[in-house]
Amino acid sequence: MSSTAGQVTRCKAAVAWEAGKPLVIEEVEVAPPQADEVRLKILFTALCHTDVYFWEAKGQTPVFPRMFGHEAGGIVESVGEGVTDLKPGDHVLPIFTGECKECPHCLSEESNLCDLLRINTDRGVMLSDGNSRFSINGKPVFHFLGTSTFSEYTVVHVGCVAKINPEAPLDKVCILSCGISTDLGATLNVAKPKKGQSVAVFGLGAVGLAAAEGARIAGASRIIGIDLNPSRFNEAKKFGVTEFVNPKDYDKPVQEVITEMTNGGVDRSLECTGSVQAMISAFECVHDGWGVAVIVGVPNKDDAFKTHPINLLNERTLKGTFFGNYKPRTDIPGLVEKYMNKELELEKFITHTVSFSEINKAFDYMLKGESLRCIIRMEA
Amino acid sequence: MSSTAGQVTRCKAAVAWEAGKPLVIEEVEVAPPQADEVRLKILFTALCHTDVYFWEAKGQTPVFPRMFGHEAGGIVESVGEGVTDLKPGDHVLPIFTGECKECPHCLSEESNLCDLLRINTDRGVMLSDGNSRFSINGKPVFHFLGTSTFSEYTVVHVGCVAKINPEAPLDKVCILSCGISTDLGATLNVAKPKKGQSVAVFGLGAVGLAAAEGARIAGASRIIGIDLNPSRFNEAKKFGVTEFVNPKDYDKPVQEVITEMTNGGVDRSLECTGSVQAMISAFECVHDGWGVAVIVGVPNKDDAFKTHPINLLNERTLKGTFFGNYKPRTDIPGLVEKYMNKELELEKFITHTVSFSEINKAFDYMLKGESLRCIIRMEA
Repeated sequence: MSSTAGQVTRCKAAVAWEAGKPLVIEEVEVAPPQADEVRLKILFTALCHTDVYFWEAKGQTPVFPRMFGHEAGGIVESVGEGVTDLKPGDHVLPIFTGECKECPHCLSEESNLCDLLRINTDRGVMLSDGNSRFSINGKPVFHFLGTSTFSEYTVVHVGCVAKINPEAPLDKVCILSCGISTDLGATLNVAKPKKGQSVAVFGLGAVGLAAAEGARIAGASRIIGIDLNPSRFNEAKKFGVTEFVNPKDYDKPVQEVITEMTNGGVDRSLECTGSVQAMISAFECVHDGWGVAVIVGVPNKDDAFKTHPINLLNERTLKGTFFGNYKPRTDIPGLVEKYMNKELELEKFITHTVSFSEINKAFDYMLKGESLRCIIRMEA
Repeated sequence: MSSTAGQVTRCKAAVAWEAGKPLVIEEVEVAPPQADEVRLKILFTALCHTDVYFWEAKGQTPVFPRMFGHEAGGIVESVGEGVTDLKPGDHVLPIFTGECKECPHCLSEESNLCDLLRINTDRGVMLSDGNSRFSINGKPVFHFLGTSTFSEYTVVHVGCVAKINPEAPLDKVCILSCGISTDLGATLNVAKPKKGQSVAVFGLGAVGLAAAEGARIAGASRIIGIDLNPSRFNEAKKFGVTEFVNPKDYDKPVQEVITEMTNGGVDRSLECTGSVQAMISAFECVHDGWGVAVIVGVPNKDDAFKTHPINLLNERTLKGTFFGNYKPRTDIPGLVEKYMNKELELEKFITHTVSFSEINKAFDYMLKGESLRCIIRMEA
């Protein structure tokens, strides 16, 4: 047991005081973990679009001051009552959605939508007692996604922590906490292209590139990237993308362009933009008889997916995915092993690294569209 | 080789001279089969909604005079050049869609949408020479779906003929030519409920009842039938339906009613009405995490399926099916065996039987909603 166990820890954290305003590094107090919770020392964290989305908080009920961050790697510092799966010193990835291992979803082979610990973007407190574990001068700072990794120490429910190989470099595998896993899993677990099949990927941001990486790992013969920004194609080649389509270059719907290029449609498609129009295109460009389209991008609240039902009757399948259908505790350690075995390449996603004190630069890189993933090193 | 091979055959047939007008029994000439064709002696045929739909020909380009009929059982009378899979005397079911065994769809394990012989509702002639094999006084009578079974003899492409167990009673298994197989397959091949799972079936006509029969065979624990007509529930119990929901009895959407009844949604649903609103309900009533909705009913041309993409992102799957994903020549003989082994019950679908001369009664029964299947006996 570490000497800090059971004590309030004081540490540095990057606090979002207001929507859209730069984070401020503050000294915060982090309460000890309660039952079924663990306190983690975060070594590396990364910035994901979801952090930025809730930090901007446009059209949302604001929950501030808040501690963002949900892609990270760290080490267990202490554990609360009843925690037997983890012990101080374990290397872990905190995950924004959990796995209680007891609810119908966790007991189902097919679902990772845990009833107890499913993602909750509005909740800013811990489940057990409805309180935050973070405070500054006695005033609470709210949690985000149950992870809040923009802090040297954080408290997380044990069901939201994946214990990984201690030899894995945390500054690389930390990006498996969220986006990269979501998109790899969308391809490998949900679209499931067979070796030699064709795959279309809508959107060549980090999400789409990870989906393409999944298609590359699966042995797809053609990986067609679709994006409105042609400069992304060069980068995309590293992730296995073999062909590029810019919808602006055509005066017909892009699904028709792809259907012609592929003699009837691609075998699989992945929608990674969140645009509902791209969703429709992604669905309608798959081959009849066996095509599968997977929706990864999160749409606006008021969007409606529309298609003519004949597209379904002609034996196309439409699916969505959440966190790539990975169960956080059960499956993420295996994904780390895929990296260790060199099946999966993570380095190419990491375009920037900054120190914790420069965390706002990570926001700038993302807002300017310059970064795929920016790693934030917690230690100087 | 029968003595009639290679000759024009004269026989009785029920000709539709005009849209919506009673069929007229006429003496027709049936030309001998050309290359890759076979001529069948039809012993039993049944009436399906698709016959009625194209006979009414509302909003369609009329193709008359025409010979309807596509659910039937018969015996091969003679075969054209190059036909090696079938010989005179074989017991067969003609099928409205074919299997060439050579195109990408036929070579795919997943598809039954044969490029060459896929259903074509507009074509009234044979593929090889663009002519009809039927004539009256030298004037052609057009084919329907490549089968035209409302005739004592008909000519069919060999790729549209399933050779079956000669011991199977043709007056029963003839209904496996189309509707019953489509709907059984929608459940058994596409929705694939696991033993003990719950299944919702929208629409309790013949289509929905066959889908329910599939769920019964699969061992579903709850089969919830949804229909606006409560009188259908009693009949539906024979097909395994355990619970009944009439959307008119509630002031909230039926998908909400079902979700509440099942603690989060059914495991599988089948839409068997063709109503686009029912499609949306069928999709939205399946459980998140693992639910699969299968669209069977054929919608109107202008209908659009709409849903909020979050319903997909929460790991629901939407699929459609054509002919229950059965490959006509490869799979239908096995379905006949399921009947022979008493796994599948067909008698309960057969509500009426008429002689060929009374064929218009079969139309009346269907139009009044009185029949599930009416068998038409070709021999007196």
